[in-house]
Amino acid sequence: MSEIKRTEIATLGEFGLIDHLTKTIELKNISSLKGVGDDAAVLDYSSKRVLVTTDLLLEGIHFDLTYVPLKHLGYKSAVVNFSDIYAMNGQPKQITISLGISKRFSIEDLEDFYEGVNMACEKYGVDIVGGDTSSSLTGMTISITCIGEGEEGKIVYRNGARETDLICVTGNLGAAYMGLQLLEREKRVLENNKETQPDFAGKEYILERQLKPEAQKAIIEVLAEKDIVPTSMMDISDGLSSELLHICGQSKVGCRIFEEKIPIDYQTSVMAEEFNFSPLTAALNGGEDYELLFTVPLAKHQDIITIPGIREIGYITKEALGSYIVTQTGQEVALSAQGWNSLSE
Amino acid sequence: MSEIKRTEIATLGEFGLIDHLTKTIELKNISSLKGVGDDAAVLDYSSKRVLVTTDLLLEGIHFDLTYVPLKHLGYKSAVVNFSDIYAMNGQPKQITISLGISKRFSIEDLEDFYEGVNMACEKYGVDIVGGDTSSSLTGMTISITCIGEGEEGKIVYRNGARETDLICVTGNLGAAYMGLQLLEREKRVLENNKETQPDFAGKEYILERQLKPEAQKAIIEVLAEKDIVPTSMMDISDGLSSELLHICGQSKVGCRIFEEKIPIDYQTSVMAEEFNFSPLTAALNGGEDYELLFTVPLAKHQDIITIPGIREIGYITKEALGSYIVTQTGQEVALSAQGWNSLSE
Repeated sequence: MSEIKRTEIATLGEFGLIDHLTKTIELKNISSLKGVGDDAAVLDYSSKRVLVTTDLLLEGIHFDLTYVPLKHLGYKSAVVNFSDIYAMNGQPKQITISLGISKRFSIEDLEDFYEGVNMACEKYGVDIVGGDTSSSLTGMTISITCIGEGEEGKIVYRNGARETDLICVTGNLGAAYMGLQLLEREKRVLENNKETQPDFAGKEYILERQLKPEAQKAIIEVLAEKDIVPTSMMDISDGLSSELLHICGQSKVGCRIFEEKIPIDYQTSVMAEEFNFSPLTAALNGGEDYELLFTVPLAKHQDIITIPGIREIGYITKEALGSYIVTQTGQEVALSAQGWNSLSE
Repeated sequence: MSEIKRTEIATLGEFGLIDHLTKTIELKNISSLKGVGDDAAVLDYSSKRVLVTTDLLLEGIHFDLTYVPLKHLGYKSAVVNFSDIYAMNGQPKQITISLGISKRFSIEDLEDFYEGVNMACEKYGVDIVGGDTSSSLTGMTISITCIGEGEEGKIVYRNGARETDLICVTGNLGAAYMGLQLLEREKRVLENNKETQPDFAGKEYILERQLKPEAQKAIIEVLAEKDIVPTSMMDISDGLSSELLHICGQSKVGCRIFEEKIPIDYQTSVMAEEFNFSPLTAALNGGEDYELLFTVPLAKHQDIITIPGIREIGYITKEALGSYIVTQTGQEVALSAQGWNSLSE
């Protein structure tokens, strides 16, 4: 094994480190007037609405560096923020990145992290325009704020779902959660036996969904091309049940979704079975899918079904009818937001 | 002593906690179209430039909860971000707040923190429009992003200082640093003898500068009234030397400042003497003053000297002449950025 280069962060200091990590940044968006290097970034949003979202990711809570490579972590940290902007029917354009890091990290580690962030920014057309780097006494802390643009009248909130609207999801659900279960299992195995090599063959898809998720840029673009503005939308980060209950709560409506229509990938099902776990539970409560959940008027059915990667899974009802999933045997089961609640015990 | 109410965070859960802490927020700025409660906030900056700044504050590195009350911490966390926006000659309008918290914090603790943030937002006319709350395995993590507005052509960067420009600072320097030294000393005394009561009489000013700093809103407004647009500007968070070297570096100029002109408060000097410490060193390298450092063309001298709270401390030179402070005995000493470098050893 080749020696891994390790340069202590103290050799650069705080300002040196920021310069080092940001010196190759080139601004690509016309709305990015001034990026890193002043007290604040300067953006031009004169003809658009500004969308702002922020996420805090803490080591040991949101990620485990024993199996998450730093490059992947950087990629994912950026993408999950882009996902929130797409979920408003907007386009992410700028991010700021703040990092808290202890001495166990080297400059090369942070370069890996930034490489991942840069890859995500390249792919999604986003500029890094600011940030902050600080030492930390303990684990790694990542805080990302993403700024995006939306068009007046086309921004989609959570509160616009109406009775008879169709409920749609993109892609498939539960894969990222099963990927996480697999990684956690292999970690425990490795802890007990250092000689073992994890066997991930045939499970690449669910691992990728966990380690390198993507945001739904293409879907937002297709919806715009077809002139479809959803009545409500969210990204699925805490699980379908939790998100759908948010939409129903804020829109003051109920819903029916159908078990047989929930999109679940084959690898997700296989992995769930191996864990004696219901694939449906992974899909409803698993989280970290970063797919989009949205509603459209019933009249858009013909337009929607022609778009690859979108599935209609049910419809919106009056609020009094509650929020239920209809099982394959015809039973109605109330949706509950178990979600991925990092603050409960 | 009355019993302190303590409600465990787990009784509310993550979403409940965010709702609880944000339910009383009312948006005040016309640019704040939609705040907390969706995937992203929505802002209208159609006639202005958008300014964005972010700060990460970590327990044990940036603050010590043994002597910093949570309400003050909330206030300060918000104000230091506003300060960055003023330093661009802008007006802060929105913030997002992300908190990482361990179980040792109760809901009442977080209410105190938010009360401080709210007080600052009220005073400076800023809306809270988003955030994230997460559990943390260790200390408290605070990440704040502030969005502000600037006028095209009037945004002030660090790179515009020109030869013969006057160098100005607001208020006085070094007080926050001496306040910190005092708090640290009293903490050590208390650790050794729990019976002692700290004696802060006559030292209220430097304590307030450390615990409850203010941003320079009024100065920015006066400059606008008098139609003065600085050629360069920064807020003084890492110490005058460090900031002035940033301005000289980015503007490719040198400078001369004069020891006798550096504004230092009486309490700062008294405290420094008690610590056998040079007041000038506190002013040059102390940090956390959140005063403004800016340059104006020489022709603005008459306008500037009529503004209370602004002091001219020197002038900008050609780059080749270097950056020096001229002592009271006429010696030239090179400025060095010792700053407050949290990543060095």
